[in-house]
Amino acid sequence: MRTTLRYGQVGGTLNAFIGGVHRKAVAIDEQAQLVAGCFSAHNPEANAQTGRHYGIEAGRIYSDYREMAEAEAARGDDRIDFVVICTPNNTHYEVAREFILKGIHIVCEKPLCFTVAQAEELCRLAKERGVLFCVTYTYTGYNMVKQAKQMIAEGAIGKVIDVKGEYLQDWLIDEVGDSVNPDKKLSVWRMNPEFSGISNCVGDIGTHIEETVAYMTGSPVRRVAAVLDTFDHPLDLNANMLVEFENGAHGTFSCSQVAAGHYNGLAIRIFGTKGSIEWEQEHPDFLKYTPKGEPSRIYTRAAHTSGHAADINRIPSGHPEGLTMAFANIYRTFTSAVLNIVNGKANDGEWDLDFPTVEDGLRGVKFIDGCVRSSKAGSAWVEL
Amino acid sequence: MRTTLRYGQVGGTLNAFIGGVHRKAVAIDEQAQLVAGCFSAHNPEANAQTGRHYGIEAGRIYSDYREMAEAEAARGDDRIDFVVICTPNNTHYEVAREFILKGIHIVCEKPLCFTVAQAEELCRLAKERGVLFCVTYTYTGYNMVKQAKQMIAEGAIGKVIDVKGEYLQDWLIDEVGDSVNPDKKLSVWRMNPEFSGISNCVGDIGTHIEETVAYMTGSPVRRVAAVLDTFDHPLDLNANMLVEFENGAHGTFSCSQVAAGHYNGLAIRIFGTKGSIEWEQEHPDFLKYTPKGEPSRIYTRAAHTSGHAADINRIPSGHPEGLTMAFANIYRTFTSAVLNIVNGKANDGEWDLDFPTVEDGLRGVKFIDGCVRSSKAGSAWVEL
Amino acid sequence: MRTTLRYGQVGGTLNAFIGGVHRKAVAIDEQAQLVAGCFSAHNPEANAQTGRHYGIEAGRIYSDYREMAEAEAARGDDRIDFVVICTPNNTHYEVAREFILKGIHIVCEKPLCFTVAQAEELCRLAKERGVLFCVTYTYTGYNMVKQAKQMIAEGAIGKVIDVKGEYLQDWLIDEVGDSVNPDKKLSVWRMNPEFSGISNCVGDIGTHIEETVAYMTGSPVRRVAAVLDTFDHPLDLNANMLVEFENGAHGTFSCSQVAAGHYNGLAIRIFGTKGSIEWEQEHPDFLKYTPKGEPSRIYTRAAHTSGHAADINRIPSGHPEGLTMAFANIYRTFTSAVLNIVNGKANDGEWDLDFPTVEDGLRGVKFIDGCVRSSKAGSAWVEL
Amino acid sequence: MRTTLRYGQVGGTLNAFIGGVHRKAVAIDEQAQLVAGCFSAHNPEANAQTGRHYGIEAGRIYSDYREMAEAEAARGDDRIDFVVICTPNNTHYEVAREFILKGIHIVCEKPLCFTVAQAEELCRLAKERGVLFCVTYTYTGYNMVKQAKQMIAEGAIGKVIDVKGEYLQDWLIDEVGDSVNPDKKLSVWRMNPEFSGISNCVGDIGTHIEETVAYMTGSPVRRVAAVLDTFDHPLDLNANMLVEFENGAHGTFSCSQVAAGHYNGLAIRIFGTKGSIEWEQEHPDFLKYTPKGEPSRIYTRAAHTSGHAADINRIPSGHPEGLTMAFANIYRTFTSAVLNIVNGKANDGEWDLDFPTVEDGLRGVKFIDGCVRSSKAGSAWVEL
Repeated sequence: MRTTLRYGQVGGTLNAFIGGVHRKAVAIDEQAQLVAGCFSAHNPEANAQTGRHYGIEAGRIYSDYREMAEAEAARGDDRIDFVVICTPNNTHYEVAREFILKGIHIVCEKPLCFTVAQAEELCRLAKERGVLFCVTYTYTGYNMVKQAKQMIAEGAIGKVIDVKGEYLQDWLIDEVGDSVNPDKKLSVWRMNPEFSGISNCVGDIGTHIEETVAYMTGSPVRRVAAVLDTFDHPLDLNANMLVEFENGAHGTFSCSQVAAGHYNGLAIRIFGTKGSIEWEQEHPDFLKYTPKGEPSRIYTRAAHTSGHAADINRIPSGHPEGLTMAFANIYRTFTSAVLNIVNGKANDGEWDLDFPTVEDGLRGVKFIDGCVRSSKAGSAWVEL
Repeated sequence: MRTTLRYGQVGGTLNAFIGGVHRKAVAIDEQAQLVAGCFSAHNPEANAQTGRHYGIEAGRIYSDYREMAEAEAARGDDRIDFVVICTPNNTHYEVAREFILKGIHIVCEKPLCFTVAQAEELCRLAKERGVLFCVTYTYTGYNMVKQAKQMIAEGAIGKVIDVKGEYLQDWLIDEVGDSVNPDKKLSVWRMNPEFSGISNCVGDIGTHIEETVAYMTGSPVRRVAAVLDTFDHPLDLNANMLVEFENGAHGTFSCSQVAAGHYNGLAIRIFGTKGSIEWEQEHPDFLKYTPKGEPSRIYTRAAHTSGHAADINRIPSGHPEGLTMAFANIYRTFTSAVLNIVNGKANDGEWDLDFPTVEDGLRGVKFIDGCVRSSKAGSAWVEL
Repeated sequence: MRTTLRYGQVGGTLNAFIGGVHRKAVAIDEQAQLVAGCFSAHNPEANAQTGRHYGIEAGRIYSDYREMAEAEAARGDDRIDFVVICTPNNTHYEVAREFILKGIHIVCEKPLCFTVAQAEELCRLAKERGVLFCVTYTYTGYNMVKQAKQMIAEGAIGKVIDVKGEYLQDWLIDEVGDSVNPDKKLSVWRMNPEFSGISNCVGDIGTHIEETVAYMTGSPVRRVAAVLDTFDHPLDLNANMLVEFENGAHGTFSCSQVAAGHYNGLAIRIFGTKGSIEWEQEHPDFLKYTPKGEPSRIYTRAAHTSGHAADINRIPSGHPEGLTMAFANIYRTFTSAVLNIVNGKANDGEWDLDFPTVEDGLRGVKFIDGCVRSSKAGSAWVEL
Repeated sequence: MRTTLRYGQVGGTLNAFIGGVHRKAVAIDEQAQLVAGCFSAHNPEANAQTGRHYGIEAGRIYSDYREMAEAEAARGDDRIDFVVICTPNNTHYEVAREFILKGIHIVCEKPLCFTVAQAEELCRLAKERGVLFCVTYTYTGYNMVKQAKQMIAEGAIGKVIDVKGEYLQDWLIDEVGDSVNPDKKLSVWRMNPEFSGISNCVGDIGTHIEETVAYMTGSPVRRVAAVLDTFDHPLDLNANMLVEFENGAHGTFSCSQVAAGHYNGLAIRIFGTKGSIEWEQEHPDFLKYTPKGEPSRIYTRAAHTSGHAADINRIPSGHPEGLTMAFANIYRTFTSAVLNIVNGKANDGEWDLDFPTVEDGLRGVKFIDGCVRSSKAGSAWVEL
């Protein structure tokens, strides 16, 4: 029986940010080893250097992701078990498609792809080929987000009647104001439609609100009425929206890259008929829970977690686990499931599959698409 | 030269809540004495008892507000200088109209009245008759709200590009859920159209968001796209809205009476091209100011106030002044202006008229009206 | 039966800070009228002006507190019921003594006096003459301090095992550092032994920690080991101390006038065998209560108060009452008790006497004395 | 030139907590590989299993730390470069001594050892043998602790005049109260003198306050007046102390394992003549800095870090790095320095040696010793 996995990576040279986070997150639980990669198709030197750094044998440092998919699939028993896709957003679709077709399991950065049609195709193919497909919506890996999900499922706040979600950053604030030259700014790839598709801000961070709320409540957004602000740029840098959930509740979502004094300010507040739950990503180990008519309670990771959220605790309460551990939580669940598969276990319904999937990725693409359509239609309600 | 004023009150018997707050707020600065009143038209005993409690002479305890306006106007030189209107919302219009026509200055509880037409008439009449008309939007009386207004006017946050405003309460949470009988609940007068007009939640607290934001930024709401939740009651208990300001900026406003764990959670966050300002009513002596690219700063009342906001400080920093002092700040400004008038001073442009007026009241009525119309029109944008 | 009282004031001209707070606090509950005063012995003009401002008849504006005590006592039935003493600290003893001897009830600013012997004499005299004697330790008037006291008395935190108390200000920070001239600074009266006695910082604010903690827990300090920092001034500007309570528990108290970023930072944390309670004066409407092993709870004034602490609520939860209301709470209790006395009621054990008394004042003087003695003795433990 | 190191571990089987944290912290920066170990001397099976799990060759899984030191030293060029000591506290001294004598660099858990004499010997030996010796006082690895150290060194708060340090936990609260049987509780090894030496609470967490403060200010504690509470147990569970620093400033330190509602509540507040700095371990990415007379500023990791504290940032601001990264920061610095040594570089004064050393370990042992002595002497001041 195998106890560790082999994986490859597309994208993510030594200097790239998110590729490194993926590797560290995998390393923390020691369930997989990096054995192959196409770290850069454009920069052969960086590609080779990255491969060497991780001790990858020369023959498995590929110059093209198609070649990599082909060659790995041909290796048979010692091929990679899964691939991690960290390329720019505009290539996710084609790379993921290629590896699905070879039956290789997938971890892909969000957003999944550019169009709803692409996303639906990836969902269909993954299902057909029996491929496990994880989309790294990191924040669902936080312990207290899981605790919130559990408590809501157990009825702690009754029926959800309103949700406020926001994700505020300020790193692009210099791009608004009188003297800004929008053309110049296409050099920031997130602001450039070629690499980011139809949305910058909603596509990068708004989609995290949608996913985290849906994960917590189990009730996704049904329709959205949005107003996106571009400040004369091609894509949005700020957005506000009315949302309606499948259960009929309303609320607001707001995301911004120009909100001074906010860094990664993802904050979710869920109000129900019997109480409320509030959580902030910048202080992720705490949860504010208010049962109707009673004082608010501060739940602290490890001290006041239960069930699954307690099982996954890594260090004692009061010691912050941080973002990398949330990432690692997602990987640990994904790799455990892949281990089950490669060891030929049948899924008896007891498998832990608590990681964001290609279906979440599809929902995210629909959400981004709906926001852009609504804003163009004068903030009319748009069904997702 | 007179140094104190005489005033009368319509509504506000000894047991009524808000009437007492008005009297305490007046008492704090000792600029006016209660000398006349029609405290209750329906309960002669409570009316008389309240009058006696304040040492009002029998002849100036009136059983009808029209009689009071008439009789006071006829007294000539020792008539009341202003009247405080604390009756239920549905009578504000008629009472205010009566006293304006007698040339008596007015302090009126919000909302000003039920319809835009009524509000416009009151504005016109007040102007024609030279009547000072204060509508007690209390929160604009807070020191740090004034500090925020000043800082924004001085350019501390550049051009306003987004605003988040919310006012969350939970006192009606028992009115949502499976077993609620909406008919029964008309006994809560705020939920009853007869006394509250077209809106409960927006009319009671949503309007405070609008006024406080407009006061701070100087840029009122131009149009609104709202969704109001009634939970099967005649009027709204929860509302979310997209707003567009006169300067083109967008944002969201949310108000609720069913948000567990929130009491008088008025919170305003204003984002500009050069920084942001954030303020919470439950901790009113503090202001969070973030200049673009720099650490957030916590401004504390008295320690870090300047200009007008410094002039009005009453007690040292770190000692909370509280809501009643915000109320008293509004009264102190209003009574000072009335003193100027009764002493025959000409307004040389130096008068301090920093209190909410009948024009703010009109804008508030338009806002409530717009929210209700938008919600009925499927959250379409509605001009105010 | 009388429903209102008459009172006089010694000290507190129109421009003085604390004298005005006393008058506003009395005014809020309309239970007493200012009818006599010796507002300044040194400044006849300010004395007369203050008297006139409050409509006091000329014959009751006194130029000397002894004359006032004499004259008022001689008036018989319409003499003042109580006197408010707001003079500099060094005169409290003599003024209070004079009025006690005339049988006039007393409200006196803290600290009560300079020496333990003086304080003991005042206690004895007040008891002998049946005089009600309130020392305005303001913070015990806060609603949530009373809620804490109740909860601790009811066993919510079990047996007290540790207490952390602090009161941090920064208004004298310019008085420390390289270039300070200590001589010059005697112009700040609190730093001048002539007016402040043996201690500045402990006497002004440290004593509030001691009183508030003793009020909450019912277990006063038994002994203290203190280190006072004078930074080359005659009196202390900063102090730290180990404390031992009558029940054997230990803890620390710290007070400072040179702690940058703190204004009136009185903060009390009480730890027991079954839980803890924490409270901060700058956010007085909230209380953090942690039952052992459970999430911390945020108690909010009015929403989560009970018993006596609920009875005294004035405005709804989420609207800050502020410091002046805490002051008014003390006055309301004191004047109610005086009303009982002047109306000849016998104390059946049901009277509400929940205000700080001359006994608290004595304990405060002992505490200040103990801290100074301990610091001089190299921080040795000193019994109080 | 070598780019990675080889290391061994004494203690830390698969199920042990802190041993795993060390391995993960090393793994994050990929600078060293685990190649040898004596994970358990008492449990051969756990020892072998742990070794196999990490792919250690059978000949380097040792049953005795002396044997390990001997055998590794004998290997010559491919011996381990450093050893990580995670055994119970009572064995730190002997294990560390053995490896120093073989010239192997050392990472050791705190507290360093039991007695001042032992600690002094380890300091002397390490110096004589040229051994780098890191004691893992984790909290000095936090980015914002380093930022605070820098700012203080640069004069941001002037001369330090007072320090408040505390470390509050509640995990032993069940051990106080009426029905506790102290004998039984020796099963908690921290409460047992055999494993913990002369102190439980001060030795485990009080020492972190001392180290973190000394690191930030550069001014260690000169003498201490302490009162330790044992609640009838052999060792302390709660402690309060007056401290005096080498620069003459005073302050208080408090540590507790029985403070309900606190988990790993290390909080440091440093007051100076020109400002103050405050930091809390449970929210480690933020720092409150108040320049004298100005609003407090909230410094956020990555957004407002500078110099060395900026260089070591790993992920963008607003994404919590967490405790494991603080640990990894210490390891990255230590292993970089060891790499310099093994590559034969001369220390030109540019080496980054910013990790806690055996000298810090010695100071920690002296601090624990001083607290215990002071408490036994009735809280008399004791020089360290």
